[in-house]
Amino acid sequence: MTSPPHRGHLVRLADLPDERLEDVLELARRYRAGARRRELEGRSVGLLFFRQSLRTRTSFEVALNQLGGHAVQLSVGSDFWELESRAGGVMDGTAPEHVRDAAAVLSSYVDALAIRPAQRGQSWDVDRRDEGIRTWAEHSTVPVINMESALWHPLQGLADLMTLRDSLGEVRGRELAIVWTPSPNAQGPAVVHTVLHAALRTGMRVRLSHPAGYDLDQGVLDDARTLGAARGGTLEFMRDPKDAVAGAHVVYARSWSSLSSYGQPTLAATRVASTRGWLVDEALMRLGNEARLMHPMPVRRNLEVTDEVLDGPRSLIYAQAENRLHTQKGLLTLLLREPG
Amino acid sequence: MTSPPHRGHLVRLADLPDERLEDVLELARRYRAGARRRELEGRSVGLLFFRQSLRTRTSFEVALNQLGGHAVQLSVGSDFWELESRAGGVMDGTAPEHVRDAAAVLSSYVDALAIRPAQRGQSWDVDRRDEGIRTWAEHSTVPVINMESALWHPLQGLADLMTLRDSLGEVRGRELAIVWTPSPNAQGPAVVHTVLHAALRTGMRVRLSHPAGYDLDQGVLDDARTLGAARGGTLEFMRDPKDAVAGAHVVYARSWSSLSSYGQPTLAATRVASTRGWLVDEALMRLGNEARLMHPMPVRRNLEVTDEVLDGPRSLIYAQAENRLHTQKGLLTLLLREPG
Amino acid sequence: MTSPPHRGHLVRLADLPDERLEDVLELARRYRAGARRRELEGRSVGLLFFRQSLRTRTSFEVALNQLGGHAVQLSVGSDFWELESRAGGVMDGTAPEHVRDAAAVLSSYVDALAIRPAQRGQSWDVDRRDEGIRTWAEHSTVPVINMESALWHPLQGLADLMTLRDSLGEVRGRELAIVWTPSPNAQGPAVVHTVLHAALRTGMRVRLSHPAGYDLDQGVLDDARTLGAARGGTLEFMRDPKDAVAGAHVVYARSWSSLSSYGQPTLAATRVASTRGWLVDEALMRLGNEARLMHPMPVRRNLEVTDEVLDGPRSLIYAQAENRLHTQKGLLTLLLREPG
Repeated sequence: MTSPPHRGHLVRLADLPDERLEDVLELARRYRAGARRRELEGRSVGLLFFRQSLRTRTSFEVALNQLGGHAVQLSVGSDFWELESRAGGVMDGTAPEHVRDAAAVLSSYVDALAIRPAQRGQSWDVDRRDEGIRTWAEHSTVPVINMESALWHPLQGLADLMTLRDSLGEVRGRELAIVWTPSPNAQGPAVVHTVLHAALRTGMRVRLSHPAGYDLDQGVLDDARTLGAARGGTLEFMRDPKDAVAGAHVVYARSWSSLSSYGQPTLAATRVASTRGWLVDEALMRLGNEARLMHPMPVRRNLEVTDEVLDGPRSLIYAQAENRLHTQKGLLTLLLREPG
Repeated sequence: MTSPPHRGHLVRLADLPDERLEDVLELARRYRAGARRRELEGRSVGLLFFRQSLRTRTSFEVALNQLGGHAVQLSVGSDFWELESRAGGVMDGTAPEHVRDAAAVLSSYVDALAIRPAQRGQSWDVDRRDEGIRTWAEHSTVPVINMESALWHPLQGLADLMTLRDSLGEVRGRELAIVWTPSPNAQGPAVVHTVLHAALRTGMRVRLSHPAGYDLDQGVLDDARTLGAARGGTLEFMRDPKDAVAGAHVVYARSWSSLSSYGQPTLAATRVASTRGWLVDEALMRLGNEARLMHPMPVRRNLEVTDEVLDGPRSLIYAQAENRLHTQKGLLTLLLREPG
Repeated sequence: MTSPPHRGHLVRLADLPDERLEDVLELARRYRAGARRRELEGRSVGLLFFRQSLRTRTSFEVALNQLGGHAVQLSVGSDFWELESRAGGVMDGTAPEHVRDAAAVLSSYVDALAIRPAQRGQSWDVDRRDEGIRTWAEHSTVPVINMESALWHPLQGLADLMTLRDSLGEVRGRELAIVWTPSPNAQGPAVVHTVLHAALRTGMRVRLSHPAGYDLDQGVLDDARTLGAARGGTLEFMRDPKDAVAGAHVVYARSWSSLSSYGQPTLAATRVASTRGWLVDEALMRLGNEARLMHPMPVRRNLEVTDEVLDGPRSLIYAQAENRLHTQKGLLTLLLREPG
């Protein structure tokens, strides 16, 4: 009686083949240039937030509305409850409903499900499996869109690619420095994983710099090298951010938490306290090649990046954020418009 | 200066006369078959949740949107506050506003109010009066729709009737077994009260089975027998679920809390712990007459009903949930479309 | 790279010049008379609530929807986070984002931002600066609408002006009594500040009455007298509410908290407990000149105003609340419709 799961999910950017990715970006440019379409009238997307969101929530809802569609906002705790994800067990615990049932039922109400899953935050080996998004994808009969899981943030990746193209024109062969920044409440590495793969997929030369103990996920790094080899991109690691930024066309600043002290808050705090010299300032930026600054926000001013750089003429942070809206409109149009 | 309360409320399924009930179901079938109408454009319904909801919240909002209308979601605590319902008192307590004022004001903003009231959960004699929905109905000048009160869940009842008709064709004279199932956080009997009345109203032969101490509301049972007598339906109680299911065309499984230990959590927990043998499995289902399974969800898998039955060929649970959308569209069209 | 802030903000009613204020009220009357326009299709307003709201939230969302537009509801805590507002500091505290960044990004998604700011509630000298709304106005590149700050509530003021006009016709020279009422959880004086300025601006003769210790903000009072002198309005203070109501055409009842015991809950509670004789009842109302009752709600029945007065033939409270919808539609039409 159950329908097969949908095949058009967007869990990671790699789920979009090159041609389809270009279609999204092309549509996004047309929307930004003023194209107005109402072809999603009567169509709904369920937005399930297991964690807070400002940019994603707002830009996604507005994207849908500008296209004539509708976002149903659902927040765990206030609007729904803990869900069971293990198969076959006796559900005598606290979760009153199984993901497979919630996914099947919601699939009969809405035309897509966009999900920001919870992260248990205790073991990276567990969280990196991304079960919080993959179980939804497995059971939904409508497309599932990842609004930032432990591993990936494809919606940010789309906006970042559009911003890189806008600023650099052809990106192939251009140099991108990804630089770690400090934050007392750093999020996971999903954004950085995504921009890393996006850059290597499009043939950029990437230099990565972060303090000891902040290595990205090993599987993601391995895949990144493979991807770079296939597409002509390169990846180098530099201990000193100055070396990473030297000659770069774009500096992508972002804080992320340590995976090696994942689930160990005391160790993580000690690690953060011992980081010095990771503030992105004009002195660092001047080492680049007329380097632009990117950051996915929220940004801690003067701790991650100085006001001078953030508000300076080569800051792309607001364009990046605005492109979230346009690229999501492109994506939603392709995913949801009716055939014919 | 105050307008008279509206007469078109839907507090219980009995508020819909037969002819109007048929209109709702007929419209629901047309919507399911693909009919698209945008006749509720510019019309709004306020959805007031004093308790959480996933299915109702989503299906109701999507139903409105597909018809061109709009749902205003309001959750007590985050969006509004405790309301006073006693008449004539000096409001020097914690509630800053009276239901009559909130109802009058919201009636001037929206075209209907859908409400899931809170339940105090201390005395069934008090909660069975359904004041949490009746005071709104008394003071609203627009239609009030019950989204599950202590006694009734008419929206689930509409979907259940549609599902029964779809599966059985003519329901008169067919046999329905309503079987209690265990759950650590069972809800009240509103859904079971509603399907019981709906089945008797349409002339079904109902057999009810539950453990000692889980009797339904006495007033509802009395009315059910009267209703059955008038419409040709019958109601029997069977202590053993096997006897209830024997020969049944449909098994309706559902957990509900004990009214005799209402407001006494320790006693209630003891009672649940002493229930054994109430899992709906294939062995039980085989006693029926090619019996279909219904359950309003959320369902605790392998505690209430086995995976095998829930995912088997005669499970109607996802159809039931989907019919929430179609029947609510039918209801909203009838309630809200402008005359002429 | 940052755009200049928008010039069309509505932080206080004074931000609307006379001619534009008349346009809003004229449009509001047309909407109330049944005019239907969908000219805000595809346009969105972000509604940011740092405090709860029922009337404002619902009426604003419905106003937008009836015009074809869309409200994005955002609540601090569930949907977004604490924001930093100091300029130039190192953001190593609890706030992960600066208002200037949130304002810039949201400005690129929505066509206006409506904000109900938090109040720290510790020092009136601090809160009266209204930084919670002014920092948003400073950094937003779309219009910012104040949904009730510490000092002002212009949306209530628009509805109040419309209600006064409806009831009195020409308001110039008519007499308005503003009378304090008791409440265990009184809000700030923003509503009273606003109606006071609105009345003096339109040439009304205002008499204000409240217990000792409940003086309005001194700056607001000074400006009120200046405004009255320029427009022919007058302001008198009367210790005894009977003197204020004597001969009045309209009695505006409203509780507000004491600014002199602001941030001192024990002192504030003592002060409230010692107030007697501030219940608005028929005996008081009869001293007026066929006086109508206004109150912005929520109202504590029989503590602030008796049921008899609230539900009597000269109560305007529901008209006042309904006019929130119509005036907000007028305002939104003027602010958001596209040129041409």
